[in-house]
Amino acid sequence: MSAWGKVYLIGAGPGAQDLITLRGARLLAQADVVLHDALVTDEMLELCPQAEKILVGKRCGQLSTAQQFINKQMVDNAKKFPLVVRLKGGDPMMFGRADEELRALEEAGIEVEVVPGITTALAAAAATKQPLTKRGVARSVAFFTSSTAPEHREQDAIPDTDTLVQYMGGREAIATAERLLAQGRRADTPVVVIENCSRPDQQIRRLTIAELAQGLGSAHGPVLVMLGDAMQMRSHQYDTDAELTSTPEQRRA
Amino acid sequence: MSAWGKVYLIGAGPGAQDLITLRGARLLAQADVVLHDALVTDEMLELCPQAEKILVGKRCGQLSTAQQFINKQMVDNAKKFPLVVRLKGGDPMMFGRADEELRALEEAGIEVEVVPGITTALAAAAATKQPLTKRGVARSVAFFTSSTAPEHREQDAIPDTDTLVQYMGGREAIATAERLLAQGRRADTPVVVIENCSRPDQQIRRLTIAELAQGLGSAHGPVLVMLGDAMQMRSHQYDTDAELTSTPEQRRA
Repeated sequence: MSAWGKVYLIGAGPGAQDLITLRGARLLAQADVVLHDALVTDEMLELCPQAEKILVGKRCGQLSTAQQFINKQMVDNAKKFPLVVRLKGGDPMMFGRADEELRALEEAGIEVEVVPGITTALAAAAATKQPLTKRGVARSVAFFTSSTAPEHREQDAIPDTDTLVQYMGGREAIATAERLLAQGRRADTPVVVIENCSRPDQQIRRLTIAELAQGLGSAHGPVLVMLGDAMQMRSHQYDTDAELTSTPEQRRA
Repeated sequence: MSAWGKVYLIGAGPGAQDLITLRGARLLAQADVVLHDALVTDEMLELCPQAEKILVGKRCGQLSTAQQFINKQMVDNAKKFPLVVRLKGGDPMMFGRADEELRALEEAGIEVEVVPGITTALAAAAATKQPLTKRGVARSVAFFTSSTAPEHREQDAIPDTDTLVQYMGGREAIATAERLLAQGRRADTPVVVIENCSRPDQQIRRLTIAELAQGLGSAHGPVLVMLGDAMQMRSHQYDTDAELTSTPEQRRA
């Protein structure tokens, strides 16, 4: 046992304050220091009024430097305070660079525990009432991102699962659609695009791969692209649902 | 607006009481009736002492009858009570037959909302400290199950993502390993098997695809199989970690 503090890598979920786990909320309320991403919402930080809050968001083009800074902040704070939280949007183990953070803490001899969070795909499926799997239609789902290195993008094959969820897929929409068509997906495959999932400015758009190939325009927040036959709407999906009004039929009416 | 009640499809997460979301816990505490699976733990049901609790677990071989019974229970209860919870292990939109339940409620004109839960893969990644994605190693992850119909199993291709997570993979271990080898995965690809994730009797095993092909023996609870190069252990992974003692090195020592 060391005299140093412990670090908790906690998933904040998609943004809404009440979509963190009970465990995550309890630890936030006890934390001495909270190191958080830019994606973590202000309302989430209200769960830790007592803690010193440090924004450690990454800036484009300086990823590795920023990651070293985050690692150092975690280690330094754990040597000073009993309970340090590293709070990350979504789930820490999915597209969260957890490997690098765990490695830095372990190499420094600091105890670390991971608390899972609602990854955005699950929140998006819930918000749109669109299951990611469906009996007889979709038995597999893949979560993926495109390479941040433009020279690698051309080689990226898109997974062959029934359902696909692309994180941070807004800017990649045209390239993604073109590759999907080249890989043999039907042009009329249903697509659901969700921006700012679970937040007050959440936007849901329903389209097809053919329409995705025209691009999504500019987005103001994180964009998740879900597609596959499981995204087909049910016949009475909106009958009982007043707040969701962005179906193509309703917009045309 | 109808005078009927509303149904919430809520994900309970993997089992531990504090791995449900704040939203899920708040709704459980207000529920009139809670229809739950056999996978939902007793400690989770302590969050709704006021509610009538009805076990609606499915029995093997009678799946469709059981699903119709669940659908009818949801509709009937929503016509009698203001707040009905359908509580499901993990996340409702992932391998949860949500499509059928949403469809039944919508066709009956009952309002429904979905609250996401921690799907077991995320809890398993947290418990084992094994990220599902890893920079330069794994940029895609698939969650899948095998067909419950034996005649379809032979045709099932296993997804081509960097990381793979098979739900309910215990009995399928040998078939999964053989197909992975046939599809070109390396025999020494690291595998992590987790049984009863997040519960007091949680078991973690680390092996390779070659070892997975020998089978896993009998399991006493839900088994999740995670594999791919992201499952490689870090060099200091257990140095700071007293409670996890099931590495091959430690077992041999």
